[in-house]
Amino acid sequence: MQLILRVISLLQLIAIIVAVKVSPLPAPRNITWGTDGPIQINVPSLTIQLNQDNNLLSDAFVRIKGSIESLKWYPAATEGPMSSMQPFPTATNLKKRFDKRYSGISTIEINVDDFDAALQLGVNETYTIDVTPSGISVNAATIWGALHSLTTLQQMIIYDNNNYIIEDSVSIWDAPLFPHRGLLIDTGRNFISVAKIQEQIDIMSLSKLNSLHIHFEDTSSWPLYLETYPELTNDAYSAREIYQTSDIVNLIIYAQNRGVRIIPEIDAPAHARAGWQQIDPALIACGESWWSNDVYSLATSLEPPPGQLDVLYPKTYEVLDNIYQELGTLFPDNVFHIGGDEIFGGCYNFSSTVQAWLAANTSRTYTDLAQVYLDQAIPIYLQKQGRKLIMWEDMVLNGNTVPKDSVILQSWNGAQYVPELVEKGYDVIVSSADHFYLDCGYGGWITNDPRYLDIDANEAFNNGNGGSWCNPYKTWQRIYDYDFTANLTDEQAQHVLGAEVALWSEQVDSAVVTQKIWPRAAALAESTWSGNRDPTTGYLRTTDLTQRILNFREYLVALGYPASPLVPKYCYVNPHACDFYKNQTILDEFGLHQT
Amino acid sequence: MQLILRVISLLQLIAIIVAVKVSPLPAPRNITWGTDGPIQINVPSLTIQLNQDNNLLSDAFVRIKGSIESLKWYPAATEGPMSSMQPFPTATNLKKRFDKRYSGISTIEINVDDFDAALQLGVNETYTIDVTPSGISVNAATIWGALHSLTTLQQMIIYDNNNYIIEDSVSIWDAPLFPHRGLLIDTGRNFISVAKIQEQIDIMSLSKLNSLHIHFEDTSSWPLYLETYPELTNDAYSAREIYQTSDIVNLIIYAQNRGVRIIPEIDAPAHARAGWQQIDPALIACGESWWSNDVYSLATSLEPPPGQLDVLYPKTYEVLDNIYQELGTLFPDNVFHIGGDEIFGGCYNFSSTVQAWLAANTSRTYTDLAQVYLDQAIPIYLQKQGRKLIMWEDMVLNGNTVPKDSVILQSWNGAQYVPELVEKGYDVIVSSADHFYLDCGYGGWITNDPRYLDIDANEAFNNGNGGSWCNPYKTWQRIYDYDFTANLTDEQAQHVLGAEVALWSEQVDSAVVTQKIWPRAAALAESTWSGNRDPTTGYLRTTDLTQRILNFREYLVALGYPASPLVPKYCYVNPHACDFYKNQTILDEFGLHQT
Repeated sequence: MQLILRVISLLQLIAIIVAVKVSPLPAPRNITWGTDGPIQINVPSLTIQLNQDNNLLSDAFVRIKGSIESLKWYPAATEGPMSSMQPFPTATNLKKRFDKRYSGISTIEINVDDFDAALQLGVNETYTIDVTPSGISVNAATIWGALHSLTTLQQMIIYDNNNYIIEDSVSIWDAPLFPHRGLLIDTGRNFISVAKIQEQIDIMSLSKLNSLHIHFEDTSSWPLYLETYPELTNDAYSAREIYQTSDIVNLIIYAQNRGVRIIPEIDAPAHARAGWQQIDPALIACGESWWSNDVYSLATSLEPPPGQLDVLYPKTYEVLDNIYQELGTLFPDNVFHIGGDEIFGGCYNFSSTVQAWLAANTSRTYTDLAQVYLDQAIPIYLQKQGRKLIMWEDMVLNGNTVPKDSVILQSWNGAQYVPELVEKGYDVIVSSADHFYLDCGYGGWITNDPRYLDIDANEAFNNGNGGSWCNPYKTWQRIYDYDFTANLTDEQAQHVLGAEVALWSEQVDSAVVTQKIWPRAAALAESTWSGNRDPTTGYLRTTDLTQRILNFREYLVALGYPASPLVPKYCYVNPHACDFYKNQTILDEFGLHQT
Repeated sequence: MQLILRVISLLQLIAIIVAVKVSPLPAPRNITWGTDGPIQINVPSLTIQLNQDNNLLSDAFVRIKGSIESLKWYPAATEGPMSSMQPFPTATNLKKRFDKRYSGISTIEINVDDFDAALQLGVNETYTIDVTPSGISVNAATIWGALHSLTTLQQMIIYDNNNYIIEDSVSIWDAPLFPHRGLLIDTGRNFISVAKIQEQIDIMSLSKLNSLHIHFEDTSSWPLYLETYPELTNDAYSAREIYQTSDIVNLIIYAQNRGVRIIPEIDAPAHARAGWQQIDPALIACGESWWSNDVYSLATSLEPPPGQLDVLYPKTYEVLDNIYQELGTLFPDNVFHIGGDEIFGGCYNFSSTVQAWLAANTSRTYTDLAQVYLDQAIPIYLQKQGRKLIMWEDMVLNGNTVPKDSVILQSWNGAQYVPELVEKGYDVIVSSADHFYLDCGYGGWITNDPRYLDIDANEAFNNGNGGSWCNPYKTWQRIYDYDFTANLTDEQAQHVLGAEVALWSEQVDSAVVTQKIWPRAAALAESTWSGNRDPTTGYLRTTDLTQRILNFREYLVALGYPASPLVPKYCYVNPHACDFYKNQTILDEFGLHQT
């Protein structure tokens, strides 16, 4: 009985999918197509009618209208039945159904409840769209929700038979499942140009990701100019590889205009050397040491170059205070990322103050030392009214404590730590490396390293994974299928604020950043917006996403963004021809245990 | 005693390396720097003086001179001692040594022995360069050797202190170890634009790779227009995704002007469907079948879509004949690649002629069937005078025989097959997937495939390798360290004509092709040109290549080619700071067993 119901619901689902060619990515939470047939849109004369003037929305509309006009997009292929199988119910031919009854819609009526809500964590992004033969109307809680309605419409207006159309009347209610839907880029290991950061923001906006986390600096370079300490950028890679204040201000505006928050990270107390050392070399311990992973008992860091803030040096906190004062002026977001990952005890063998502190009381541990840092630093970070912090989970996993009401933990070490953190009562953003690290799978980057040589192809962490600590490459399917709130109670799941894919940049710079992120990050965009499972059946909807993400990639290339191809084009234009299983419900079956 | 000698030789080697900043990639076979100090080159008025007019060399010189002038290249970092170690002997400061004694060189005197030698497999590519304060003179056996001398000079002329210089007087004797130094691209699974193919040729030329093998078509698409059968390109992906005859003619000229041969591959009898089916559907067996890797006993191919030539259909050979007649007019190279990989018996379950043939004599096998194909097809392929063929090794590994004097085998299944093939007396080009497949490590591409899901992270061919059959990603080190003539006698090694890296394009098109090939292919360029081991010590020179390949990547980016970054820029500008082992001879030790 249950099996029969399930088959019916799948057929119904497929029937809905094939009724129209387009399907936005991420899938809306609730979308109901009508039966009026294609609705013509007068794109050249299309305007929006707002219940109050708003430049941000007007500008967004001009951009999006421009894309629609210049692309004249019509999807080359969409989800449909496998051609050689007994056919599923097929769609009525689109062109046959087109009907010139309507003169075409020239106005999008947008009603926003609250024009003033700031773009901050948790802002209401809800919107509805109603398309009927007589018009398009949008209702949105905030301008951020209204922005999302425009990118949805952008994906729905296609160019068919010399007309811009929406394929049928349709009602959408949409709102994100999670308030934090993020992408991490790292401008410390290698520089990423302002233009390429803008490109990420463009595509995030199109896929409804809303949080760009910039890991601005690391031990290797400091590209962020700050007036308080101009000497920081002496450790930029070159004069061209600096973010000037005007660059940052413009990027923030650029992102805000597209509904994307920029969350800056200054990593401390580990991953600290470049920049800081220019202010005062005594701020940094072990910055000139051999990192010594060849003699691991002497190791000072997990990757070169080493360096950590000397957390017992009083000036460290003075400098942190000054830096956060300026950051607080520069960045409007209430949330700051304070780093906090990978403190490595061995580094402090190079700090006589730390060694003296440990010797003074033999019960003291490195966890105690970290708590000394936290107790002094967190009040400084929190000085600005209303600020919240994100911190990597490491110190809490090591037994340290931080204020639960003001610190969100970002979990990266592995899927198993998410339940542990929410169990402790922390709010969590999930970036588990085993699913969400986009930099994995490209081999390693450490030089003079025999692990890349062909000496033992079977040994783990050797040639078997090409020297990459987090092999394999995370496919879009692996990203999408990760149920990052699995095994949590409903109450615990409330502590998960969202998720973030991360592209660390040891082997990334402007030449490859877009190819490595897209379209994979779109899988996270959907799983954090409307989920990775069919809301009715609870089954993984990976198969449903397949054709949409392939189409999204082609759309990005058409817009000029060099996203990576996922399949031979043959597989894109012939849905299911490249399936492994003829059984179209195989993924449901494999995914069942997680519902 | 041996140890002491070795240390001395390493110190000497390093002393030579640090004496000058530049070191061409691939390393010349023999290079001896003088002690005259920097030699000024009057680049703006630089000309070449040839012993006979030659447009190809004059044009190459104009291009290369343009690059030198527009880049004004000065390497940001070159090989040197690790900074915190007891220093090795360091170079005299370059700028201090610079001396305005010389008015600067304005002529490169080039003497070519044979201006008429055609660019074909085995053409003499030898050249010498002598740079003294009074001039630059080149001797080359052919214009192809002279072209190489110009790319060497391009890498050696740097812009220092407002002057173009070569850092010291120098003598080079150079010639490749192997005549076939190749790169495979695949335009069948996804299309690659003519502009992007030209980009590959540009960089091949700069790194002295000389053979561009184009796998033109596959079961999924046929982009190559042929007059004989215009209907072939009905199976191109779109009208924009076709190589017109003029495109091919221009590409061949473009490549030839840069010393690069284009070797076309039309894959048969397997990997055949698109294009062929437009001529006559009966040419193809199983082209519309389910590929059935889910029920493997019924499988018709190793990847979708399936399709193989019906080798018992007489028209098959008529069509092959016609196609090769036109290819022979279009492509000037003596070598043609005839495919021949992955014949899959199951496909012929869809051929009634094959089934009848098998039934007629129960001793007949699929190997016998393949021999029927070979005995008919190879004489057709060899009709053109002087032609040689390259064929994938598969059929010979399965027990078939082909004429050893006219068929070269390309080995891809794994390093272990190279000795087997040369033992049988075949000439071989090495493309072992376990070292030379550039497409590995990006996860898989088959859709509706639970292998990507997080169901069993430890199972091989599952999430453990991200669904990629040839995981891991092949790092440049793994490519470089592969001693592809290991375990061969000197006589056997003579049968190895060279090697080729392959970028299959299931997940490649114009958006990513350059990033995925470069700079990794430069590791092969060096190992096939001058070897991967120090000629004196026999030790792997991976450490020596490190700084040069990092520099080569930066040079490519400066020229506008989006090659992938290999390391944080910090590691590039601080040689050895990102080494895993402080012991600089560790790779020698690991590599010793292969000398």
